[in-house]
Amino acid sequence: MDTTADTTAMRRAISLAARGLGSTSPNPVVGCVVLDATGRPVGEGFHQRAGEPHAEIHALRAAGEKARGGTAYVTLEPCNHTGRTGPCAQALVEAGIARVVYAIGDPNPQATGGADTLRAAGVKAEQGLLAEEAEQGNAAWLTSVRRGRPHVTWKYAATLDGRIAAADTTSRWITSAESRADVHRLRAEADAVVVGSGTARTDDPQLGVRGIDGAVQPLRVVVDTAATAVRPGARVLDTGAPTLIAVADDADARHLPEEAVLRLPRAATGPGLDLPALLAALHGRGIRSVLLEGGPTLAGAFVAAGAVDRIVGYIAPVLLGAGPAALADAGISTITQALRLHVTETVRIGPDLRITAVPRPAPKGN
Amino acid sequence: MDTTADTTAMRRAISLAARGLGSTSPNPVVGCVVLDATGRPVGEGFHQRAGEPHAEIHALRAAGEKARGGTAYVTLEPCNHTGRTGPCAQALVEAGIARVVYAIGDPNPQATGGADTLRAAGVKAEQGLLAEEAEQGNAAWLTSVRRGRPHVTWKYAATLDGRIAAADTTSRWITSAESRADVHRLRAEADAVVVGSGTARTDDPQLGVRGIDGAVQPLRVVVDTAATAVRPGARVLDTGAPTLIAVADDADARHLPEEAVLRLPRAATGPGLDLPALLAALHGRGIRSVLLEGGPTLAGAFVAAGAVDRIVGYIAPVLLGAGPAALADAGISTITQALRLHVTETVRIGPDLRITAVPRPAPKGN
Repeated sequence: MDTTADTTAMRRAISLAARGLGSTSPNPVVGCVVLDATGRPVGEGFHQRAGEPHAEIHALRAAGEKARGGTAYVTLEPCNHTGRTGPCAQALVEAGIARVVYAIGDPNPQATGGADTLRAAGVKAEQGLLAEEAEQGNAAWLTSVRRGRPHVTWKYAATLDGRIAAADTTSRWITSAESRADVHRLRAEADAVVVGSGTARTDDPQLGVRGIDGAVQPLRVVVDTAATAVRPGARVLDTGAPTLIAVADDADARHLPEEAVLRLPRAATGPGLDLPALLAALHGRGIRSVLLEGGPTLAGAFVAAGAVDRIVGYIAPVLLGAGPAALADAGISTITQALRLHVTETVRIGPDLRITAVPRPAPKGN
Repeated sequence: MDTTADTTAMRRAISLAARGLGSTSPNPVVGCVVLDATGRPVGEGFHQRAGEPHAEIHALRAAGEKARGGTAYVTLEPCNHTGRTGPCAQALVEAGIARVVYAIGDPNPQATGGADTLRAAGVKAEQGLLAEEAEQGNAAWLTSVRRGRPHVTWKYAATLDGRIAAADTTSRWITSAESRADVHRLRAEADAVVVGSGTARTDDPQLGVRGIDGAVQPLRVVVDTAATAVRPGARVLDTGAPTLIAVADDADARHLPEEAVLRLPRAATGPGLDLPALLAALHGRGIRSVLLEGGPTLAGAFVAAGAVDRIVGYIAPVLLGAGPAALADAGISTITQALRLHVTETVRIGPDLRITAVPRPAPKGN
């Protein structure tokens, strides 16, 4: 039976886990809190970076002998395999932990079985506390395990009437400095940032994370099918972070650095690249989360491909009445085909609103 | 000096005032709370309908002899003139009220002077408590007094990407039943509901208030410049509420009921009617607040005319990627001309978001 103390400890573990967002891929984010036998917090930790110790190890080291007879709260089932670090289930047993409470089971076939190991050693192991919150915190990694492709967040910034620029294409600045700073946090949490050729051509963006201490720079990806948008000297080709320019198999990309070119098949229908192939290629490089930053054409193609897992919209209290819309053709022509979402959060960011939403499961029988 | 008790009483008076929204025009909404000499509430009231007693009279009647030596909290300076009812300032003096706290002064030259009357009779009169909240509550009436035209709220319902319909014009239903019910509350608070010819032609709306007990039906106004959108038998011509079809001076409107036709000059530039002339005509008929329900063309014309005082957007968590935008040409072609707003409220309405915003004052020196 879960007590208030259990819930408090697990919630803390979930918030610790979130600190690893953007730097643990291809691993999940994990947080861990250890209480001693009397219920006092004696250690906590989170997984900081692939190849470095898991959350449980950090927490057990902090707790030392005080862990004996205590309870460990972990956001994910402790691992059972020896990768670059030893199995956490074994470490918990050796530390003398009497009970392990974990939020969600490990869906990774290589790592699962930790709970069995614990039980075999006489440790109580309980699953499910705050499972939903822990799932949300690990949405990117869980999506990648379940779907075999990175989790995709589409971010856009638009006016109240849905425009991303004025009729003459001017757009600086629609959203506020606060919103633009918040986007850097989103970038820092993502393994890769993706834009299309229109954005590359119009904005010449650098796509790096700025203003966040210790942030891991995401891989920068430009979908430049015809290899005409990114020119030598483009800011996205600077040395600030690794870059991939995804081009069509048959595109002439000799003006681009060879190591930056990712060749992919064209989409079977419509213009652009085969997006599932792009996502598979990114997945193969250890990318578990993608921040799709636009523009409307690429976002429409992702929506049409069913490859948007989360939408983060920065809505500026501005009206334009003309200018390009945030989302272009997504293959939806009538209202019953609309992509219906569920709003998970609404926050004021300076003068703007940030709306976060996820696709609703398709209704049955439709 | 204002105490907590003062603030509590005034806040109550403001919420009482709001009950009159939609039924007091051309008068303001007003609420009143009377505390006895020991600070206990002994009477309250609000102005319910033009021609009926003012808020102070209701509250004084409820308080009776207990008002003597007490304090009256009124959202607007008590009136000094004898209209269809006697002057409230005099009534407060006669009831033996010792102190009157009012939120905002009366800007109406016919009615002002109440505070002077009170002071001349030895009653303490203090202005300014919760003035901002009281201003907001009376925004429609104050706008009409200050600008000589009705207060205009533009209401729209759109997807997250700013569309009001899919590419094939289907739109039932983008927003939820809860949002649609909320719109009836907005209608009930307005003196008039205005739509354009596109909406009249496409939706044949009835524009009445449904589902709200005791609501006063607003005047229904269709801007039908060429007199081609509203046909005999249109639902807006039913007997549920009065209706005006605003047509151009030179339009052939013989198919419309004569008493429903409002002839106005055409706009000096662009298509459509002269909107200031429309608003002046409505003001002349006692209309103090207008709910502009669309569509995008008419809304664009109102924005271009600087005649939108409040925006209420119902945003459905839906993506379409194609289809008409919520706001069409508003005469804005570059980002520096954008209409910048200030968000005053964000609320979840069922699965949707309702965003309320007001235009920001123009920055100086631009």
